[in-house]
Amino acid sequence: MLQKLLITGANGSLGSLCRQRLGHMAKTIRLNARRGLGVAGPDEEIVYCDLSDKSAVEAMVEGCDGIVHMGGQAVEGPWKIVKAANIDGMFNLYEGARKSSVQPRIFFASSHHTTGFHAQTTRLDPSKNPTRPDGLYGVSKVFGEALARMYYDKFGIETACVRIGSCFPEPPSHRMLSSWLSADDMICLIERIFSVPQLGCPVLYGVSDNDAAWWDNSSAAYLGWRPKDNSERFRSKLDAERTPPMRNEPDAMYQGGLFCTDGIHEE
Amino acid sequence: MLQKLLITGANGSLGSLCRQRLGHMAKTIRLNARRGLGVAGPDEEIVYCDLSDKSAVEAMVEGCDGIVHMGGQAVEGPWKIVKAANIDGMFNLYEGARKSSVQPRIFFASSHHTTGFHAQTTRLDPSKNPTRPDGLYGVSKVFGEALARMYYDKFGIETACVRIGSCFPEPPSHRMLSSWLSADDMICLIERIFSVPQLGCPVLYGVSDNDAAWWDNSSAAYLGWRPKDNSERFRSKLDAERTPPMRNEPDAMYQGGLFCTDGIHEE
Amino acid sequence: MLQKLLITGANGSLGSLCRQRLGHMAKTIRLNARRGLGVAGPDEEIVYCDLSDKSAVEAMVEGCDGIVHMGGQAVEGPWKIVKAANIDGMFNLYEGARKSSVQPRIFFASSHHTTGFHAQTTRLDPSKNPTRPDGLYGVSKVFGEALARMYYDKFGIETACVRIGSCFPEPPSHRMLSSWLSADDMICLIERIFSVPQLGCPVLYGVSDNDAAWWDNSSAAYLGWRPKDNSERFRSKLDAERTPPMRNEPDAMYQGGLFCTDGIHEE
Amino acid sequence: MLQKLLITGANGSLGSLCRQRLGHMAKTIRLNARRGLGVAGPDEEIVYCDLSDKSAVEAMVEGCDGIVHMGGQAVEGPWKIVKAANIDGMFNLYEGARKSSVQPRIFFASSHHTTGFHAQTTRLDPSKNPTRPDGLYGVSKVFGEALARMYYDKFGIETACVRIGSCFPEPPSHRMLSSWLSADDMICLIERIFSVPQLGCPVLYGVSDNDAAWWDNSSAAYLGWRPKDNSERFRSKLDAERTPPMRNEPDAMYQGGLFCTDGIHEE
Amino acid sequence: MLQKLLITGANGSLGSLCRQRLGHMAKTIRLNARRGLGVAGPDEEIVYCDLSDKSAVEAMVEGCDGIVHMGGQAVEGPWKIVKAANIDGMFNLYEGARKSSVQPRIFFASSHHTTGFHAQTTRLDPSKNPTRPDGLYGVSKVFGEALARMYYDKFGIETACVRIGSCFPEPPSHRMLSSWLSADDMICLIERIFSVPQLGCPVLYGVSDNDAAWWDNSSAAYLGWRPKDNSERFRSKLDAERTPPMRNEPDAMYQGGLFCTDGIHEE
Amino acid sequence: MLQKLLITGANGSLGSLCRQRLGHMAKTIRLNARRGLGVAGPDEEIVYCDLSDKSAVEAMVEGCDGIVHMGGQAVEGPWKIVKAANIDGMFNLYEGARKSSVQPRIFFASSHHTTGFHAQTTRLDPSKNPTRPDGLYGVSKVFGEALARMYYDKFGIETACVRIGSCFPEPPSHRMLSSWLSADDMICLIERIFSVPQLGCPVLYGVSDNDAAWWDNSSAAYLGWRPKDNSERFRSKLDAERTPPMRNEPDAMYQGGLFCTDGIHEE
Repeated sequence: MLQKLLITGANGSLGSLCRQRLGHMAKTIRLNARRGLGVAGPDEEIVYCDLSDKSAVEAMVEGCDGIVHMGGQAVEGPWKIVKAANIDGMFNLYEGARKSSVQPRIFFASSHHTTGFHAQTTRLDPSKNPTRPDGLYGVSKVFGEALARMYYDKFGIETACVRIGSCFPEPPSHRMLSSWLSADDMICLIERIFSVPQLGCPVLYGVSDNDAAWWDNSSAAYLGWRPKDNSERFRSKLDAERTPPMRNEPDAMYQGGLFCTDGIHEE
Repeated sequence: MLQKLLITGANGSLGSLCRQRLGHMAKTIRLNARRGLGVAGPDEEIVYCDLSDKSAVEAMVEGCDGIVHMGGQAVEGPWKIVKAANIDGMFNLYEGARKSSVQPRIFFASSHHTTGFHAQTTRLDPSKNPTRPDGLYGVSKVFGEALARMYYDKFGIETACVRIGSCFPEPPSHRMLSSWLSADDMICLIERIFSVPQLGCPVLYGVSDNDAAWWDNSSAAYLGWRPKDNSERFRSKLDAERTPPMRNEPDAMYQGGLFCTDGIHEE
Repeated sequence: MLQKLLITGANGSLGSLCRQRLGHMAKTIRLNARRGLGVAGPDEEIVYCDLSDKSAVEAMVEGCDGIVHMGGQAVEGPWKIVKAANIDGMFNLYEGARKSSVQPRIFFASSHHTTGFHAQTTRLDPSKNPTRPDGLYGVSKVFGEALARMYYDKFGIETACVRIGSCFPEPPSHRMLSSWLSADDMICLIERIFSVPQLGCPVLYGVSDNDAAWWDNSSAAYLGWRPKDNSERFRSKLDAERTPPMRNEPDAMYQGGLFCTDGIHEE
Repeated sequence: MLQKLLITGANGSLGSLCRQRLGHMAKTIRLNARRGLGVAGPDEEIVYCDLSDKSAVEAMVEGCDGIVHMGGQAVEGPWKIVKAANIDGMFNLYEGARKSSVQPRIFFASSHHTTGFHAQTTRLDPSKNPTRPDGLYGVSKVFGEALARMYYDKFGIETACVRIGSCFPEPPSHRMLSSWLSADDMICLIERIFSVPQLGCPVLYGVSDNDAAWWDNSSAAYLGWRPKDNSERFRSKLDAERTPPMRNEPDAMYQGGLFCTDGIHEE
Repeated sequence: MLQKLLITGANGSLGSLCRQRLGHMAKTIRLNARRGLGVAGPDEEIVYCDLSDKSAVEAMVEGCDGIVHMGGQAVEGPWKIVKAANIDGMFNLYEGARKSSVQPRIFFASSHHTTGFHAQTTRLDPSKNPTRPDGLYGVSKVFGEALARMYYDKFGIETACVRIGSCFPEPPSHRMLSSWLSADDMICLIERIFSVPQLGCPVLYGVSDNDAAWWDNSSAAYLGWRPKDNSERFRSKLDAERTPPMRNEPDAMYQGGLFCTDGIHEE
Repeated sequence: MLQKLLITGANGSLGSLCRQRLGHMAKTIRLNARRGLGVAGPDEEIVYCDLSDKSAVEAMVEGCDGIVHMGGQAVEGPWKIVKAANIDGMFNLYEGARKSSVQPRIFFASSHHTTGFHAQTTRLDPSKNPTRPDGLYGVSKVFGEALARMYYDKFGIETACVRIGSCFPEPPSHRMLSSWLSADDMICLIERIFSVPQLGCPVLYGVSDNDAAWWDNSSAAYLGWRPKDNSERFRSKLDAERTPPMRNEPDAMYQGGLFCTDGIHEE
C-alpha cells in the first residue's frame, strides 16, 4: 500500500474515475487539477495548481510515492497550450520526482496518438517504439515517453508509459472498437503497475481485450495485467446507430483516425 | 450490407456452405459453378460458366461488390486443369473486377498448401509470406496471392487471401487436428472480411482455435476475427478410429501432409 | 501407448508425481533413483543406480521407448555433484539411448535457471535460445540441452527440453507467481510430448497459464499443450503471508531470483 | 566443369552475353531461342523451339547438367504472351529437368519486378520473400520462384532464383543507379552458382555493388559472390544527360519504376 | 540545384563548415545565427534571429527549398535554453516550412545523444528507433525527430534526421573513435540528402566508416552515401596522448559517454 | 599494456602462434601446456600443468590480468578426454579467475563446431546463439560459452567467446574457404579484445574476410576488428589440387563438415 498517491488531472474523465476507484491503494490521495475538485473526502488532499508552474508542481510532488499522471492537454490544441501542459508540465513533474524526499513510481497517461499515423491494418508492438505521432499532441506524448525513459536511466525513477486508447463507457465510433479501454481494465492496470516489485520503464497500450485489436502488449506481460472487457458487445448497437466510415476515410485508414487530418491549431 | 455477392464454386463443399449461410450479407447472391446448382432461391442468381472462359467470367463479375472465390481446382491435379482453373481463372476474375462498374472486395480461398513443405514443428506467420508450396496446386495458389496483391497495389482492389486449412465437419486425420477449420469459424471470418471498413490485402490462415496450432494469425487481428472452435474435442474419437502416422511418415512431418509426396500428375 | 517408460529421479517431487500419474502411458513403468522407491507396483520395475554409473545407466535405458528424465541435481550445488549428476548423467543417459535396441523419445527436465540472469521485465522466446544461466546448475542444463540437440541432429533421438519453472502445490514466493507450473499442467505436457507423431527437439518452458508470464511458448504450439492453471488465484494469500521483495532485491530483478546471488559452492 | 550447359533466350541481351562469356563452363553449350542464333560455334548446339512447346522443351533439357534460363518474356506484355512464356515455359522447363536422365542445376532469371511496388526507401532482404509484383510480368516471376522452390523441396532440383535488376552497359535512368547490374558481375554470379558444391534454392538480387543500393543479399553470402562494379561512376554523366524524376513521380517512388503505372496490356 | 538553401546555426562549427563547402548546392545560401556571421559573400544572405522567435523564423524560412538545420542548443543545458532552442525552435522552423510558398527539404541535425544510454557493446539500427536519450538535450532531439515525422506524414515535408556522432577534425577521446564523423563525410551526406529524388523521412547516424562502429545505417542505403573516412588512423596518436577510460567509467560504458552522468542543469 | 598474459595450449598451433606474436601485449607472458614448451624466452614464464588439475590451474591463473585460452581438446575425442580438458578445464580456469587477486579478461577459443549442424546455406548471427553442436567437442564448447557468460553475469569477468573457424596457413578443403581464419586476422582480433575499454561477453566467429562467408559478426563491430585476409586467393590452387565435395556429401552440406558424421568415440 502506498503512503501518498498523487492523481493529476483529477477533474477530467480518467482522473475522476481514478479518484473514485483508487482510494484503497494509498493512505492519502492527493488530487490535483486547476479547479473543480469539490470537497476533499476522508484521506484526500486537494492541490490546485497549473502543471506549468514549476515550483508549485515540485511542492505538490514532494512526499508522494505514487503518481497517476492523467493531467495535461488530452487532445490536439494550439502549440502554447500543448507545450505548457505536456512539455513543461512533464518536465516539472519529473523534476519534482527527482527532488522529492521519496522516489515515486509513475503511471504516465501517454496516448495511442503517438502512433496514430500507422495504418489500421498494421499490428504494433509498443516495446519496439514505432512512433508516428498524428499531431502536436501526439508529438508531446513522444516527448513525455522519452523524458520518462531518461529519468529512469539516469535517476532510477520507474514509469509505465501507457498509451491510452479510447476510454469511454462505450466506444463512440467504429474505429474505437479497436482502441476501446474499459474503466475496469484501466483501474486493474493501474493496480498492477503499483503492485509489481520491479516495474522498469515499459511502454504499453491501454486497451481492453477487443476482438478487433491493433496492439500487442505481450512485451509487458510480466505486469500480470489481463484485460477482461471486449468492445465487441457494442458492435451491433454501434452499427445500428452510426454509419461506419468508408474505406478511404481517415477514420478507417489510420489508427489515430481524424487526428491525422487535423491541421495545426492557430493560437 | 452488400448489393450483390458472387460465390464461385458454389456447388463445392465450401461454396454450398456459403450459399446456405451467407444469404444475409447481400441483397442478391450470385452463384457460380459449371453445373449442379439446382433451383435458384429467392434473391439468388445462378450463373453457369467455366472460370477459364474470360468473357463469361467478366460478365459474371460485373456489378458485384463482393466476391467469395471458392471456385477453381481444390486439390492437386494435372497441370492443364490446375492452370485453367487457378491461373487463368484467377486472371479472368481479377480482370472482371478491374473492369467492373463496381469495385468488389474479394475473399480468395487460398490454401495452406502454399506452405505445405514446412515442418509441422515450425510456426508460421503468414504476413511474412513463408511460401513453400507442396505441388502444382500450391504453386497456383502462390500465383493467386501474388496476383491479388498486384491488383491491390495497382488498382486498389482489396482481397483477403485466406489459406484455408482443412474444412470438414470433423478432422479426418491426425494432421488435420492442427489445420482444421470449422464451418462456423469460416462463416464468421467471411462476415468479418466484408465488414471491416478497410481491408487492405492481408494473408492469413483459415484455421480454428485448435490446441495443436501451427499458424499465427496475429498480424490480421485487426479483422476482429476470433475463431471459437477447437479440434481437440475430436482427438479421442480420432485416436480410437485411426492409427496416427509414424514420426517419419510425411503426414507427420510436413504441414501439407501427403500432398508433399504426390508426384506431378500426368494429363 | 508406450511399451516401457523410464522415469528417472522417481523419488523426487516431480518424479514421484510422474510415478503416480503417468501409469496409463506405458505397459511398464521403469522407475529409477538411487534409493527410496518403496515397493514396485503392478507394471512397475525399480532400478536403483547412480546416473554417473555409465554401464548401469546404459543397462537401465535399454529397451525403453520413452524416458522422463527428472533425475539429476535439481538445485545449485558443488561442482562435483552437479557434474556427476547433470553432465556425466546426461551423457550416460544419451549413450544408453543411442545404443538401445529401441530408440526412445525423451522428456528432459531442463530448468528456467538456464535463463535466470534475464530481467523479470524481459519476455523470452525459448526457440531463440536466450541462455544466461544463473549458476553451475543452470550451466549444466545448458550443457544438457546442447547434448540433446546434438543427439537429435546426429542420431535422430527426439527430446523435448522443458525448462521447468517452479512446480509446487502453491507458489511459495512472489517471483514464482510468474514461474509456477501446476502438477496438472506438467502431466498434460508430458502426455502431449509422448503423443505427437513428430516431436523434433523443441525447447520450451514448463509454466502454467499465469497472468504474470515471462515466457512465450508459441514456437512449440504444435505440441497442442495449453496449460489450464493460473497462479493468480494464490496472489492474495501470498500477499497476506509474505512481504513481496523490494524492487532492488534480486528476487524482484532476475528471473532466476536468488540463484543469481548464490556463489560457487565449495566442495 | 559441366558436361552440357543449356542457355535459353540465347538471342536476347543477357542470353547472348552468356553465350559469349560462359563457354569455359561446359564441354558443350546448348543454345535455345525461337530464332536468330546464327551459326553454331565449336562446342555449341543450337535448339530452336518455343518454351511453351512441352515436348520440345523436355527434349531440349534432356542431358543438360546446367541451365541458365534467360528465356521467356522479359517485360510486361499481354497475358497470353506472359503466360505462354513464363508460366507454361517454366513448367515445361522444370518437367524437362525432372524427367531428364541427368539432374540439372538451374539459374533462373527472375526479376526485381517481383518486388516492384516497394518504396525506393525500403531495404529488402530477398530471403524473406517480400513479394509485391508490379504487373503480370512480375506475377509470372513470383510463380516461377514458387515453382522452382517446389521442385527443389519435392525433387531436389537446385535453382538460384536471381532477381535481375537492370543489366545494361550503363544505367539508362536515375532509378537504375540503384538496380544496375554490370555484365561482369552477372557472369561472375553465374560462375559461382555453378561452382558451389551445395546450392539449395536461394533467392537473391542480381545487382552490382552500387552506392545507392536497395537490396541486401547477405543471406546468400555463402555463394561467395561479391559484385565489383558500382553504378556511381555513371551518375554525373546521367545527371548531365537526363533530368532526374521528381519525388512524386513513380520512377522516384517505386523500386519497379514505371512498371507500377503500366496497365494490363490488351491482347 | 536548389534555389535557396538555408543554413541555421551558421556560426557554429558544423554550420560554418556547411557555409564553406555547400555553396555549390544552391543559387543563394541564406545563413542564420544570432550573431557573428561576418560579411555576406556573393550569393549569400544573412539573417540574424533567434530560433525561438516564431515570426522571424517563419519569415526566414519563406522561399527556401532546402534547409540544413544545424542551429539550436548542441550540448546539455538548462531546460529553458534547451526548450527555447530545440523545442520551440523546431516548431517554429517546421511551421515556417509548412506555411512557405515553396516546400523545403530538410536536413535535421539530430544527435546520437537520443540513444546515449545504450551500452557501447550494443549495435543499433536507427530505423528501429531505439531511443534512450541521455539528458534533456537528447530528449529535445527525440522531440525533434517526432515532430519531423509528423510533418512528413501530415504535410509531406521530407526530412533526414541525422543523428550526428562526433564531428571534429580528430576524435578527442577514445569513445569518439566509434562516433567520429569527418567533415568530408558529413558534406557528402548532405549532398546526397538533397540529391535523391525521393527522400522520405529516414533516421540515420552521421558517422564515418570507423572500424569501431556501433551503428548500422543499412536501412538508409538508398541514399547512396558511403562514408570514406575511418577514425582508426587516429588511434595510436590518441593512445599516446590520452589514457583510455577504465571499463567501469561511463565514457567506456555508454554510447553517450559522460552525457549519461551529467545532472539536470539548474538555470 | 597487460601485466601478465597467460596463454594456455601454448604448444599447439594457435598457442604457439600467440607465443610468437603477442609478446608486445604484456610485460610477462606466462605459457602453459602439459609439455613441450622449450626454453623460456625473456619475459616468458613456463607453467606445465594439466587443465584438469584444479589447484595447479588456480595457481597458474593467479595474478594474470589477461588470458588467451587456447588450451583443451581441439577436436572430437572420447568423452573422458573432452570432459577433462574442456569441461573440467574451463571450470578450473574460471575458478582461478574468480579467486585471483587480479580479475583477468579472457579470450576463450570456442569453435564453429558449436553450430556445425547448420546448413552451409544458412547465415548465422552469433549474438543470437544459434547453437547446434556437431559432436561432444562442440557440446563442450557450448558448455564453455555458457560458463563464461555466467561468470560474467555473476562475477563480472569479461570474456570474448571466439568461435574459431579454420586457422591454417591455407584452407585445406573447399569447406574451409568459408571458415578460414588467417593468422594475421587472429592476432589482430586478440589485440582488439584486450584493447577495448569495455568488452562485455560477446560471442563472435573467428573468421577472415572470406568471399564465401557464412557468419555475420556485425553484432561485435564495436570491437573495431576488421579482418583483412580473404581465402578466395587460394581457390584456384585448391580447385587444382582437390576435388570439391559433391553436393550431398556432409562436407558440402554442413558448416561443421565431417564432424557431423563422426560417431561417439569409444574410450
